[in-house]
Amino acid sequence: MSLEKLSSNKHYEGTLAKYKFRSAALGDTYTQFNLFLPANAAQGKVPVLVYLAGLTCTEDNGAQKGGFMRDAAAQGIALLFPDTSPRGAGIDGEDVDWDFGSGAGFYLNATNPKWSKHYNMFSHITQELPQVLEKAGLPLDFTRQSIFGHSMGGHGALTVYLASLLSGMKQYRSASAFSPICEPSEVPWGTKAFSGYLAGGVAEGKDRYDATAMIGKVKGAVNILVDYGTADNFLYQLHPDKFLEAARVAGHDEVQVRVRKQEGYDHSYYFISTFASDHIHFHANFLKA
Amino acid sequence: MSLEKLSSNKHYEGTLAKYKFRSAALGDTYTQFNLFLPANAAQGKVPVLVYLAGLTCTEDNGAQKGGFMRDAAAQGIALLFPDTSPRGAGIDGEDVDWDFGSGAGFYLNATNPKWSKHYNMFSHITQELPQVLEKAGLPLDFTRQSIFGHSMGGHGALTVYLASLLSGMKQYRSASAFSPICEPSEVPWGTKAFSGYLAGGVAEGKDRYDATAMIGKVKGAVNILVDYGTADNFLYQLHPDKFLEAARVAGHDEVQVRVRKQEGYDHSYYFISTFASDHIHFHANFLKA
Repeated sequence: MSLEKLSSNKHYEGTLAKYKFRSAALGDTYTQFNLFLPANAAQGKVPVLVYLAGLTCTEDNGAQKGGFMRDAAAQGIALLFPDTSPRGAGIDGEDVDWDFGSGAGFYLNATNPKWSKHYNMFSHITQELPQVLEKAGLPLDFTRQSIFGHSMGGHGALTVYLASLLSGMKQYRSASAFSPICEPSEVPWGTKAFSGYLAGGVAEGKDRYDATAMIGKVKGAVNILVDYGTADNFLYQLHPDKFLEAARVAGHDEVQVRVRKQEGYDHSYYFISTFASDHIHFHANFLKA
Repeated sequence: MSLEKLSSNKHYEGTLAKYKFRSAALGDTYTQFNLFLPANAAQGKVPVLVYLAGLTCTEDNGAQKGGFMRDAAAQGIALLFPDTSPRGAGIDGEDVDWDFGSGAGFYLNATNPKWSKHYNMFSHITQELPQVLEKAGLPLDFTRQSIFGHSMGGHGALTVYLASLLSGMKQYRSASAFSPICEPSEVPWGTKAFSGYLAGGVAEGKDRYDATAMIGKVKGAVNILVDYGTADNFLYQLHPDKFLEAARVAGHDEVQVRVRKQEGYDHSYYFISTFASDHIHFHANFLKA
């Protein structure tokens, strides 16, 4: 699991570096990620904010188009950008669809034997990456960790965060999402993913990886921010209203779960970057507490 | 020359739209550009800042990776992102090299008959785009116009600006550049371009499109900001020291011509976005004066 550094660019006085390693969680395939370290990481460990990208994306989309680093640098927070799936697993059909297989790992651990050796993005994000980065001696404090993402990655951020609360781990201090798939067990993208990756199909997905189902089970306080646009062509895949309703029914008020409807914005990185600063500052409240 | 709108995204409360039109300056080929209009453009015409991209780029690189819109939106300035060359001109060899032909128009008007029907980016930027956008009724005030760019586009911004001063037109209020090719007649990229596009070769290029040669001829005051990185692998193509020396010899002090050497930064958009805010505010000083 040794890290190979592929490139390094100075950025906002810090460094954006790309790394590669052979991932056990992803079936011994090579995976890449980008890591932004703010300048203050030279003086000691810094908090970590993980960004999960959406369908068809790689580790580069958020790093290049998200507009996150300006505020992360100012706040002294590291940003970790993983890939969105295993690459080159060699599974029959993995490159056929843009919304399933390569580029579409859905941040779950597959239980269907066809996919279960490689498609374990949940373990990759929650366990393997922190372990590999700590072992490599990078100046990251994973006890101060939060997570956010876009679309499929928004689904990933919410479910990874809620799972860590439900398990009692409390691995993340806060979660936020742009245009997240909030109720995957009820929409085409999610049911396709769950039916394919999970031996128990949509029922297993609803139980383990559906933010709207999960938020209703969380008893303690949560720190969640969601933004979505009213001009989003994929709004029918997202169901932010269902997530909000389930959160309120479960007793999470607007301080705990804030879902903002942004007039006229769409599903693109032009939308994400517009609200990037808000999300970095939201997480900074908890990471620097 | 009627405009066709290809897409539109809400961005920082304004709009980033992509357009297409048949360009006379570019030999009746179709060209595309991106235009960011800040929210205040709904109340009246706004100043225009033109961004010229570098080799291999299109109208998208600056719009997606430059990090310019946050401050442009706050300052109420429109950003215009043209393409870097004609596309599909059908000239033998135009797609062979990455540093000549398609994606490498060098912001000049070709005089070599092989290229002169299509490769007229100078006229496209300085005359055609303002005319087409005004005719289309877009809320842009081209009497308040400035220009900036990166690498080949930094060369373009400096030379287009200096040419307008030397001609007495004063079409632009200020110019700035990231990692510009400051002395093209003395470096590989520039001599290749001048030898190919210009009937008079490098000598014609030095006379008409070489910022270091041109700055020495300008008598009045200039408003120029240049940033370059010390870790830029292409520094040998840029010659910012030669440009600075020629500016000082010609009597332009550090208020008129500021050339900043940025320690550890390279040639990438990670460098550009780091100093994007500085450049927008530099131009805002003149555009909003």
